[in-house]
Amino acid sequence: MLFRRLACTLHHLIPPLASAFSRPYLVSVRATSSTWGLKKQRVKNLEKARVLNKMATNNDAEATLAPLRSSVKEQGDYVRSLKENKGSDNDLARAIAELKLRKRTLEDKELELAKPASGEFDRAKMEDLIKRRFYYEQSFSIYGGIQGLYDFGPMGCAIKSNFLAAWRKHFILEEHMLEVDTTCVTPEPVLKASGHVDRFLDYMVKDVKTGDCYRVDHLIKANLEEVIKDKKTAEEDKNKAAKLLGQLDNLDKQGFADAVTSWKMKSPITGNDLSEPVEFNLMFGVSIGPTGLIRGFLRPETAQGIFVNFKRLLEFNQGKLPFACAQIGNAYRNEISPRSGLLRVREFTMAEIEHFVDPSNKDHPKFENVKELVLTWFSACNQMDGQAAQKVAVGKAVADKLIANQTLAYFVSRIYLFLVKVGVDPSRIRFRQHLSNEMAHYACDCWDAEILTSYGWVECVGCADRSAYDLTQHTKATGISLVAEKPLPAPVTVDVVEVIPNRALIGKTFGKSQKKVLEHLSVMPEKEILAFEEDLKSTGASKLTIGGEELAFTKEMAEIKRSQKTKHVDEFTPGVIEPSFGVGRIIYAILEHNFRTRPDDEQRTLFALPPVIAPLKCSVLPLSSNPGFQPLVKQISEALTLNDISHKIDDSSGSIGRRYARADEISIPFGITIDFDTLNNQPTTVTLRDRDSMEQIRIGIDEVVPLIVSLVNGRSNWDAAVQKYPKFTAQETTGKKD
Amino acid sequence: MLFRRLACTLHHLIPPLASAFSRPYLVSVRATSSTWGLKKQRVKNLEKARVLNKMATNNDAEATLAPLRSSVKEQGDYVRSLKENKGSDNDLARAIAELKLRKRTLEDKELELAKPASGEFDRAKMEDLIKRRFYYEQSFSIYGGIQGLYDFGPMGCAIKSNFLAAWRKHFILEEHMLEVDTTCVTPEPVLKASGHVDRFLDYMVKDVKTGDCYRVDHLIKANLEEVIKDKKTAEEDKNKAAKLLGQLDNLDKQGFADAVTSWKMKSPITGNDLSEPVEFNLMFGVSIGPTGLIRGFLRPETAQGIFVNFKRLLEFNQGKLPFACAQIGNAYRNEISPRSGLLRVREFTMAEIEHFVDPSNKDHPKFENVKELVLTWFSACNQMDGQAAQKVAVGKAVADKLIANQTLAYFVSRIYLFLVKVGVDPSRIRFRQHLSNEMAHYACDCWDAEILTSYGWVECVGCADRSAYDLTQHTKATGISLVAEKPLPAPVTVDVVEVIPNRALIGKTFGKSQKKVLEHLSVMPEKEILAFEEDLKSTGASKLTIGGEELAFTKEMAEIKRSQKTKHVDEFTPGVIEPSFGVGRIIYAILEHNFRTRPDDEQRTLFALPPVIAPLKCSVLPLSSNPGFQPLVKQISEALTLNDISHKIDDSSGSIGRRYARADEISIPFGITIDFDTLNNQPTTVTLRDRDSMEQIRIGIDEVVPLIVSLVNGRSNWDAAVQKYPKFTAQETTGKKD
Repeated sequence: MLFRRLACTLHHLIPPLASAFSRPYLVSVRATSSTWGLKKQRVKNLEKARVLNKMATNNDAEATLAPLRSSVKEQGDYVRSLKENKGSDNDLARAIAELKLRKRTLEDKELELAKPASGEFDRAKMEDLIKRRFYYEQSFSIYGGIQGLYDFGPMGCAIKSNFLAAWRKHFILEEHMLEVDTTCVTPEPVLKASGHVDRFLDYMVKDVKTGDCYRVDHLIKANLEEVIKDKKTAEEDKNKAAKLLGQLDNLDKQGFADAVTSWKMKSPITGNDLSEPVEFNLMFGVSIGPTGLIRGFLRPETAQGIFVNFKRLLEFNQGKLPFACAQIGNAYRNEISPRSGLLRVREFTMAEIEHFVDPSNKDHPKFENVKELVLTWFSACNQMDGQAAQKVAVGKAVADKLIANQTLAYFVSRIYLFLVKVGVDPSRIRFRQHLSNEMAHYACDCWDAEILTSYGWVECVGCADRSAYDLTQHTKATGISLVAEKPLPAPVTVDVVEVIPNRALIGKTFGKSQKKVLEHLSVMPEKEILAFEEDLKSTGASKLTIGGEELAFTKEMAEIKRSQKTKHVDEFTPGVIEPSFGVGRIIYAILEHNFRTRPDDEQRTLFALPPVIAPLKCSVLPLSSNPGFQPLVKQISEALTLNDISHKIDDSSGSIGRRYARADEISIPFGITIDFDTLNNQPTTVTLRDRDSMEQIRIGIDEVVPLIVSLVNGRSNWDAAVQKYPKFTAQETTGKKD
Repeated sequence: MLFRRLACTLHHLIPPLASAFSRPYLVSVRATSSTWGLKKQRVKNLEKARVLNKMATNNDAEATLAPLRSSVKEQGDYVRSLKENKGSDNDLARAIAELKLRKRTLEDKELELAKPASGEFDRAKMEDLIKRRFYYEQSFSIYGGIQGLYDFGPMGCAIKSNFLAAWRKHFILEEHMLEVDTTCVTPEPVLKASGHVDRFLDYMVKDVKTGDCYRVDHLIKANLEEVIKDKKTAEEDKNKAAKLLGQLDNLDKQGFADAVTSWKMKSPITGNDLSEPVEFNLMFGVSIGPTGLIRGFLRPETAQGIFVNFKRLLEFNQGKLPFACAQIGNAYRNEISPRSGLLRVREFTMAEIEHFVDPSNKDHPKFENVKELVLTWFSACNQMDGQAAQKVAVGKAVADKLIANQTLAYFVSRIYLFLVKVGVDPSRIRFRQHLSNEMAHYACDCWDAEILTSYGWVECVGCADRSAYDLTQHTKATGISLVAEKPLPAPVTVDVVEVIPNRALIGKTFGKSQKKVLEHLSVMPEKEILAFEEDLKSTGASKLTIGGEELAFTKEMAEIKRSQKTKHVDEFTPGVIEPSFGVGRIIYAILEHNFRTRPDDEQRTLFALPPVIAPLKCSVLPLSSNPGFQPLVKQISEALTLNDISHKIDDSSGSIGRRYARADEISIPFGITIDFDTLNNQPTTVTLRDRDSMEQIRIGIDEVVPLIVSLVNGRSNWDAAVQKYPKFTAQETTGKKD
């Protein structure tokens, strides 16, 4: 349930993109570019260099940050004391808003200081490459385009498909998860039960004349930032504006209305007046079937499709817990004003896992495997105290109760390992814990994997301990018990209160609903039975809400029986740990982290994607149009196909350098070139070029495909290849753009 | 565009499931069951046996079919003569309806005769297994379920995922196709241009009191079939009903209305009166964005997402033709009355390929590879002549002009090879050509891959030569030229008529639409330019429809210039060959064709799926709960994971026979058992069991995983394994259901 925005957490789960937009954080990439090409340093050494660099500057930075840190801590302590002394809700809300403001100021400064002096990430340049080589593009652009909808072109689609294959392998295969594929079209009662119908909303205001809509929090933010920037604004007003900006996440409908009115905000395009803020549910409505009577929505997350199938899944797993069920699929959110490219869109792919577990034991059998892993944790405490995120080994984090339990920590670790595997820069990943006031009401602990991009820290994976919330909700709505059983150590005798229904009368009274009613009566908790009994006794009648309907019962319909029973098993509603991945966001971050410019030619840009997700693994390049090359091209291509290695044959007429540059642009990690030596010498050899170092080796034609297979599978690497095979040196001509 | 039902082809492209429903064709499976288990015959011999069997009975059958065949031929000839002599449309329509009726009678008899005496396929038994092991299930069943929506459970989802991986490999990887991933949400103008807004519809009638909706052709069919079956019906009425039944596919709105009225049809459930037939568009409408002003639909096919990106795709392919672009994704059809399980649903996955080609040369470079392949062709001629489908080699089919061109024939062949690879019974595949009157108006040749199931012949893959229809439509709608270029053999001088726009005035007049207008003027065909010129000359003004808007031009806005130009390239709109797969339908057919019952135990049912799409490849079974087995289970599981082999560890307490039966039910092809010999003997060995033959071999623990890898990849087979390793004989206890 990544990005879920129920009312209580309405503005928390999404990082403040708008503010990041106006204060772009510029990530170093040039720092890495000096290692390209002729200098022949290895890409993977970059990481080390970057970390060392950072450590050197850390001391100066900390001096600057110290006062900001203590300002946060002071306010954090104040919030804590209010909580302890049960301060008024109003006081607490104001104090938290102030805390957030101080946190934001601190984070801005941290990002500013982290900005490397050596160079800047050039987003426009990257977007040019993305567009030019059709990684992705706004949908229906020949029709003018639709905001918030993106099409993945051949390269983007292949990256996504490789990403999902890697995800399936890392999670489903390695962890023996179940996987389901459920529908996007979802009937209303399901999303009513999950809370989305009532609470999955944003507030918007309309231009009273044109009807254009604006998300009110974005509009207020943009306005206040203008006010603060404006030199003519009085100091007092600047302070007021800054304060309101800090409270934005906590405003309710009235709060938004007051802000718009008191600051006299107008429609940003026309200058017209704005309407009162209105609630806008973010789900796309659809009507199912020809009558138009079955109301439904496109799912806003894939998770509910797993919860409603829980009973069958548990059965499939032979009744045993824990087990995890995953789903990869599309979800839909009718954003009021989508923006920031792939980061906030209306149709997107999610990959979600629901791990069902006995809530009394959240240990994990494979925890041993990850406990030495050191991660960056940005705990709620750190945030309240104005401290930086801290690096702690996973084992210690659980032992110190930094994170709630082993299973949650195990998934956090697996998420981290996956992100690094698919190309996210490990130094730009942190796990941020939700503050208690931003946690959804059902969750007992929640950590977001945030990735640092030029838009700031972006929430890319949520990892929440959701307790028993969803299963309980669906049981309430359907009357169908969604529980698991575990054997008791020894049988116990218990007092039982149960409803004995008068089946004939119930059948006669409720007709088709009979089954649902009987099911409901059979699973009613003791407390409800006692209230029901009390009603029947005192008034001779009672009402129960079953499957959304209120039904009237008379005392003839049911008898309350008390008895003693021997129990061999215990029934319980499983807890759920949920890692939830926003696929498009992560892919965007991977592209940013792997965007490179060749140092000798500003115009030569490329993505240094790891082979596992590179769209094509290999290019096959005959040096010229000499017909003697063709049979060899065919031979190599067939061998690659036989080994499932996606590849591109580029026998176009461009110079070899130009073709290498073109292969680099679409991130092909390896290139096989067939040259005249291939034709003339025995044994037959080809050259193999590595995209990242631009080095080439000379290798036997029969050896090259097996080598590529092992390079792509990660069972070998370029360093080892260079050790084994002779280097081939040829000046790579600059590949001008074609 | 599989299953596309534009008005002109409204009822043709979907096989008549309803009628198949009431006349179930019972496919032999028992014939195969005698080969199971102790008799130890090989599954793959079955096919041979079946074919031999059929040939023996063919002669008797043909005698019965002969009069029916000539009845079809007589009518087919009559239709041909009407066409040649330009008979009235009315006469032709009636004659075609009669032809279809005779074809159907013939096909029914063919299916009846093909029904093997040896046994029957038991659909209920298969559906029980599908439900019990959660292959798939109606969605939201705890909420009462929604018609036409299905969830794939763990096994169905894994099959689907393996199916799609195999599809990607067979088509995208092997044929070097591009792949895209475009959005489901589609704005209205796109689907207006493609023809879906106006013509993607069915007719329905409503119960005037309850409002329940029925698809009118289904309702009429069910009614007429009742009439015919009813012993009290007069012979004359029976004939009339049968005749109308045969014409059903050709009825228009008035025809449906007349049928309902003249036969006094009522609502099937309540007996109430019915409304007039009304058109119902099958697309799910959605409104995009908060204003509700951007109207859109969920795509009814994935193809349009490719067409609207044609320009970028061609550019990505460096301007070269031919190239193919594929897409796998969901599509949506709001069926009036979905039924037949996975065969007609409201949300489904398609895999489509658009192969763009120079229309003047539809040869295919890899045609050589398939020309010896013998396929079953059911040509339009065969259908008109009452002949059976014929087996012809692909090369001969093209040479004889049975099929339009090499590229279309190449794709038909690749479709066949794919279907067989993923487990469709090759003897139950035929390619049926569309009759000229059922072909969509844009197509010049179309062959459906039809698969025989217990619902009759089901269209599972369409393969159409769609010519330049879609690209032309999108150009008309957007004014953006969607063409390719090819070099002329020698430059030619041509007379050119072009519009020279007055840019300043056009900019002033049309404001934001300026770009669209200029683009449109620059690509207007000569004929339109001349008409435009004529208007401007005679009246001083003219109107043009650009991007759906009618715009008024004055003679000041444009000048018509005549000149001579030297052309080096020729521009043309590419033709499109489109293979289009209905994923759910094919998976359903695979399940039916691979459903088996063990001969020694009627209750032991299983799916003998080929390893490539089996949901899990291997089970790992410790013989008992002896703790000594655990390290070996772990060792084997880790080795399997390292080799990407999905597997299931079943260490539950059931007997080994029961656990084998459970593994069979979820179609696991191979099972590794660790027994006491494993613990006690040196070298360490395990047993490996083959699901289909139930044979076991004894094999070294280090050899078993490599063997499974090669069995799963299809690089080895069980016969070879049995030759190499000693057989292990142990009576397999009957695995009672758990």
